[in-house]
Amino acid sequence: MSLASQIRTIHNVDRHHKHLKWTKKQAPVLTVSSGDVVTFDALDSSNGQITVNSDASALDSFKLELADPAFGPVYVRDAEPGDALKIDVVSLDIGDWGWTAVAPGFGLLADEFTDADLKIWNLSATPGYAELKPGVRVPLRPFLGIMGIAPAADGEFSTIPPTDVGGNIDCRDLVVGSTLYLPVQVPGALFSCGDGHAAQGQGEVCGTAIETPMKATVRLTVCKNHPWVQSPHLLLPPQAPSTFPVEDKGQYATMGLDSDLLEATRKATRYMIDWLVSTKGLTRYEAYILTSVAGDLKLAEVVDMPNFAVTMNIPLNIFSS
Amino acid sequence: MSLASQIRTIHNVDRHHKHLKWTKKQAPVLTVSSGDVVTFDALDSSNGQITVNSDASALDSFKLELADPAFGPVYVRDAEPGDALKIDVVSLDIGDWGWTAVAPGFGLLADEFTDADLKIWNLSATPGYAELKPGVRVPLRPFLGIMGIAPAADGEFSTIPPTDVGGNIDCRDLVVGSTLYLPVQVPGALFSCGDGHAAQGQGEVCGTAIETPMKATVRLTVCKNHPWVQSPHLLLPPQAPSTFPVEDKGQYATMGLDSDLLEATRKATRYMIDWLVSTKGLTRYEAYILTSVAGDLKLAEVVDMPNFAVTMNIPLNIFSS
Repeated sequence: MSLASQIRTIHNVDRHHKHLKWTKKQAPVLTVSSGDVVTFDALDSSNGQITVNSDASALDSFKLELADPAFGPVYVRDAEPGDALKIDVVSLDIGDWGWTAVAPGFGLLADEFTDADLKIWNLSATPGYAELKPGVRVPLRPFLGIMGIAPAADGEFSTIPPTDVGGNIDCRDLVVGSTLYLPVQVPGALFSCGDGHAAQGQGEVCGTAIETPMKATVRLTVCKNHPWVQSPHLLLPPQAPSTFPVEDKGQYATMGLDSDLLEATRKATRYMIDWLVSTKGLTRYEAYILTSVAGDLKLAEVVDMPNFAVTMNIPLNIFSS
Repeated sequence: MSLASQIRTIHNVDRHHKHLKWTKKQAPVLTVSSGDVVTFDALDSSNGQITVNSDASALDSFKLELADPAFGPVYVRDAEPGDALKIDVVSLDIGDWGWTAVAPGFGLLADEFTDADLKIWNLSATPGYAELKPGVRVPLRPFLGIMGIAPAADGEFSTIPPTDVGGNIDCRDLVVGSTLYLPVQVPGALFSCGDGHAAQGQGEVCGTAIETPMKATVRLTVCKNHPWVQSPHLLLPPQAPSTFPVEDKGQYATMGLDSDLLEATRKATRYMIDWLVSTKGLTRYEAYILTSVAGDLKLAEVVDMPNFAVTMNIPLNIFSS
């Protein structure tokens, strides 16, 4: 198949075409055919409330009800309930700055991190990296935190929690070259996306990634009769590419063990923060932010009753020494 | 440092030196110095109850109280509470056969898989792989399911659940070249290991890996005054090696979403089983076993309240088509 036939038609959704609820009643801003390519110009997840000049005081007046806007929706012809909508991630262009917040009341360790904190990242100073502080830099690996379609249920639903039709799934695997499948529940699917992330670990533990405006291009294809797709499915390419090649220096991991899976997850994160503070000279808030943007939570075992084992893994290539 | 000085002294623990409880009262079978190397000849986790000739009926008479024997313990001179015991995984030699069981009442989806099932694997027919059925083969990636030390608490504790001093942590990352750190709680640490796994996914969802006898060699080193090691810590090498190189063909993943983290984990697994049955021609029990020995559970996000997002990832290189 030629490139011309693969890229059928290119459409644009701009940053004014946003919504803060998932609902099948949201009027589409665009109608496309299966196989068409759409570019979205997405504001960051703060919806412009945080700027490159913000400090932690911006969180005092932060309106959560304005957060996580989704851009769209796009009506895809021929998409019907029982089909899957296939979303190929074609390109992702990040802004030249980003932010990570520890917001009181939000995040995996909200009860232990009660102060507001905000990190503004320079994403253009060192190509491919964002520097937390001298000697600690995070490889960039952009993806969209939000890709979703409208649910069949009546009503309006917040864009913050993800559901079986996707939305704010915050899955760091969905880099360029990846494919997401979502279960179509309403005619036309009504696809939207947003929540650009320049980098995030598995878990997004402090509640935010490196949040950034993003120009995202995806191909939308209807897969007829895919009843086995009842929730998001992902097809991930070999060695999911980074923006720039990054040397593999191995990983350091901490394990949390508990009879409650969420508490095991919290322990693994807490122990990694302790290790970063004890051995890498980070403050507790810097360490929490670093686990959120660069640490991966994995389930070692979920069957050796009564204790679950969860690991928090940090790649060692983020440290200069 | 020369190899001779690195490998100080080689000791052996044989398969009769086993115990089924963690307790500081277990008499050591060996006393070694920090830096010494010990080889363990470990029976499989069934403790010999399952053999290469067994079928599922072996599970009818299976005694759980004999399962997961630990081999040792080894007293390490100078190890004291407040230190960490560093365990370098030097070599792991698997047997020529292995087994995976779905045992009633055990495993992440025990309520949905109520029949007993047993798969006996040939681990020597195709170097580096174990074949589930024609067209589906699992790359081998051996590790010890159990590495642990004695707890300070009085009493005897089952070897099945892992705890802060390790034990049955079933962490697939601990391949040859990896290092595990455990928090010493009693003089001499009292290290034991066992539960050879030829391959396992993150989660070990059906309750067992490819269980196999294993000859394991580790180096035991005392790290004085490591108070930040309060639970297992891991140092993992770059691109943790497989026994044989395996082509990367990417991954397929299913996502579970729920306000309960364990239920989200169960959904991700269930959806992957559905996909394997729908598109790869596996039976439900074959699919469950495959997710246990080759599928990885990861936490995409744990902060977008109220829903957690968990993925079950299957590498596509296990399928011939």
